[in-house]
Amino acid sequence: MERPTGVYFQTMTMKQIRERLKQCDLIIIPVGSTENHGPNAPTGEDTFLVTRMAEQVALKTGCTVAEPIWYGYHPYHHIGMPGTVPVKDEAFIDYLVSVIAGFWNTGFRKQILLNGHGQEFVIPIAIHKFAKIFQVPAIIINLNWYHAIQDKFKTKEEGGPYETPFIHADEVETSWSLALFPEFMHQEWAVDTEPKGFLPEGHIDKAGNLLHRPIAWYGHVGGGPIEVVAYPEGVVGKATLASAEKAKEGVEALLDYLEKLVRDIMERFPAGKLPPAEMLSQRPKEELEALTKEPLTEGWRNLYTAGNLWG
Amino acid sequence: MERPTGVYFQTMTMKQIRERLKQCDLIIIPVGSTENHGPNAPTGEDTFLVTRMAEQVALKTGCTVAEPIWYGYHPYHHIGMPGTVPVKDEAFIDYLVSVIAGFWNTGFRKQILLNGHGQEFVIPIAIHKFAKIFQVPAIIINLNWYHAIQDKFKTKEEGGPYETPFIHADEVETSWSLALFPEFMHQEWAVDTEPKGFLPEGHIDKAGNLLHRPIAWYGHVGGGPIEVVAYPEGVVGKATLASAEKAKEGVEALLDYLEKLVRDIMERFPAGKLPPAEMLSQRPKEELEALTKEPLTEGWRNLYTAGNLWG
Amino acid sequence: MERPTGVYFQTMTMKQIRERLKQCDLIIIPVGSTENHGPNAPTGEDTFLVTRMAEQVALKTGCTVAEPIWYGYHPYHHIGMPGTVPVKDEAFIDYLVSVIAGFWNTGFRKQILLNGHGQEFVIPIAIHKFAKIFQVPAIIINLNWYHAIQDKFKTKEEGGPYETPFIHADEVETSWSLALFPEFMHQEWAVDTEPKGFLPEGHIDKAGNLLHRPIAWYGHVGGGPIEVVAYPEGVVGKATLASAEKAKEGVEALLDYLEKLVRDIMERFPAGKLPPAEMLSQRPKEELEALTKEPLTEGWRNLYTAGNLWG
Repeated sequence: MERPTGVYFQTMTMKQIRERLKQCDLIIIPVGSTENHGPNAPTGEDTFLVTRMAEQVALKTGCTVAEPIWYGYHPYHHIGMPGTVPVKDEAFIDYLVSVIAGFWNTGFRKQILLNGHGQEFVIPIAIHKFAKIFQVPAIIINLNWYHAIQDKFKTKEEGGPYETPFIHADEVETSWSLALFPEFMHQEWAVDTEPKGFLPEGHIDKAGNLLHRPIAWYGHVGGGPIEVVAYPEGVVGKATLASAEKAKEGVEALLDYLEKLVRDIMERFPAGKLPPAEMLSQRPKEELEALTKEPLTEGWRNLYTAGNLWG
Repeated sequence: MERPTGVYFQTMTMKQIRERLKQCDLIIIPVGSTENHGPNAPTGEDTFLVTRMAEQVALKTGCTVAEPIWYGYHPYHHIGMPGTVPVKDEAFIDYLVSVIAGFWNTGFRKQILLNGHGQEFVIPIAIHKFAKIFQVPAIIINLNWYHAIQDKFKTKEEGGPYETPFIHADEVETSWSLALFPEFMHQEWAVDTEPKGFLPEGHIDKAGNLLHRPIAWYGHVGGGPIEVVAYPEGVVGKATLASAEKAKEGVEALLDYLEKLVRDIMERFPAGKLPPAEMLSQRPKEELEALTKEPLTEGWRNLYTAGNLWG
Repeated sequence: MERPTGVYFQTMTMKQIRERLKQCDLIIIPVGSTENHGPNAPTGEDTFLVTRMAEQVALKTGCTVAEPIWYGYHPYHHIGMPGTVPVKDEAFIDYLVSVIAGFWNTGFRKQILLNGHGQEFVIPIAIHKFAKIFQVPAIIINLNWYHAIQDKFKTKEEGGPYETPFIHADEVETSWSLALFPEFMHQEWAVDTEPKGFLPEGHIDKAGNLLHRPIAWYGHVGGGPIEVVAYPEGVVGKATLASAEKAKEGVEALLDYLEKLVRDIMERFPAGKLPPAEMLSQRPKEELEALTKEPLTEGWRNLYTAGNLWG
């Protein structure tokens, strides 16, 4: 996040950014959280997961990475947990809409919001709100890392590396943390807890809805206890079972997919190209042409003349 | 931001954080922006200014630093500038309120929001809104780095190091950037521009309101042009005149003051101590006691039971 | 506020207003509050201060005065005080945005929001939010009366008329009230209180930030007590020391400055004239021309077609 390697947007000058935009106008925006992940793992875990992923793909593909969103959305059962910083719903959504708009206006009209936290049902709301306000051509994608490689979380019974299913700060998530940022991890302090639910097993899914059950893990309140009372340790599962080794295969598959996604987008729509504007907006043709010109060139008008972020 | 040095909250585990809170329950929250600062300086300039300041004071005093707010508030004349990512007013304010509340609930009941960007009139609204919603004892301070050392920006005529007054991405701000994060700077690409105004000189102040004029630099619309039209370079002033040397004395004075502020607060109110609750809130005594206990100890209740962030 | 002298907008008919606009299209909007100012001074003090100032300058310059905003924004430490009517932050800001828009649409495209209360950090947000929503040429200025004459509050030690620094309903503010609206004042009931703070003196500034200290008077919560507990009298300082005489020089300087500001604006931009539209907005030229025509003339379009106040 702080090295002059040309990966992070905020470490670059406008001269460097303009040159980058001529090569690749796709930016990855890591969307994380600040959340209690137990005595053994950093509270920035969800953010470091996706910044470390994004950096590696940026170095390989030449795309750009935005400095991360450090504070995220949280469902009710997270509220009150020390170490967790939950952002007000509307503020989080409009914060993302503002960030998407700012990068679009700069010229990054292709964006991947790479999500590292349990807010996969909120980020799409921001993407669509951006589009409804501004109605301009763009490719904006929310990729939740765990959805990119859904078959890489299997338990040993299913032929996978893990003993327990993915929930929170547990065997799975801690293994990925050991693989991506071991320098912040302290397994010597790891603890285990026993997940609890109030309804018969099988109705409500677990992290990432990877078990394809009828009710999403976030699709309920009251199906399970609030964490501040039931899991004061900040862990829901068996963190002591974690190892970097267990995550290796998944990490490689994830990086491969993210790289493929970037290349597929850029191949189909090279720098400066987008799907046909009239297929993505009914704004007047003249207006769309002015808005999609290269910023600061003759006839260009900034995005905020077309849509009102502050209304 | 990414080294396991025990400075940044998000790099620490909850075990480390609980131990830290016993020594020092003060956190510095760097509040920056992502903004065009010219062809020669990084768009994260306002954020790097305050993270680099906060880190050094944390290492000396043992306080903690939060990972920064990378996307900030912007006045009208910034809107539309490529490279600048302006956040919707209410979203920025409520994002800050949420962050203050999350850290307060964690045990950091003393906070310094260290501001590096022209949003010094917005951050106080978040501080007071937090207090109005929750009405709990706390010491929450907004320190704008340029207000900590108001006499360190003098021009040569006034006996100072600079040739021009502080405006934006100019001689002053670029000098401070060269002093604090030279690795992102490219003075070989620096350019100069001529500041323009529509009213006679003397009415409207400049950055930080350091000239003590009748109208704050942010207290108007229409007194000067919008930057995307008048200063497409992203610079308002003479960046080519900048040098790290010119900023040295100011940087040292700033770090000394920030250290003094942290020490003065912690000396008067050691870890776990706050001004008398009944002088800061008329909530029932019993409720204030439950809220201000050490998190997760017997009788503690989380902050969100008392004030409604989502109301 | 209630005499047919052609000063107050709301006392004038549209025929009178159209004729006025041909001479001077600048309106002063007094922004006050309803706040406990002690047993001896009216709760409308902050409002009467600025209406009495505005009226005198309107009579001399021919500009117009809007009826005042009677209910204002309040920081946390005012909340709960009987006699004080604090407005919800967002509502106060949007109320001001609406007033600015309404007067702009009427033809008053030059406005001075003359502030008489401790809300100098909130009014600019309304000004910039108006501009972000509508993006039309305008000169909108927030003038806080105490910032127009920053050197007129000196204590006797500094060669000034006062014995104590300016805080609230104290020697300074009460002296100005005695000078501007003696008919509402009852000095026979005046009381004194001792200002209290929880941090060492020197960090936090006082009213108007006139002492140029590192932390603005409104830049904190917890640096001092809430008023309803610490100052139930509604006075923070020594109201008994007040006299009209002490304020005279400051009042004259303030009126001179406010007159100069109005004349400077009108001289540079006579009625119907504004800074170049393309330097203040990137809206299409045709649209700006339609919006800035004289209301109800051929080709004119009302402001609300361009920006959505209700979005």
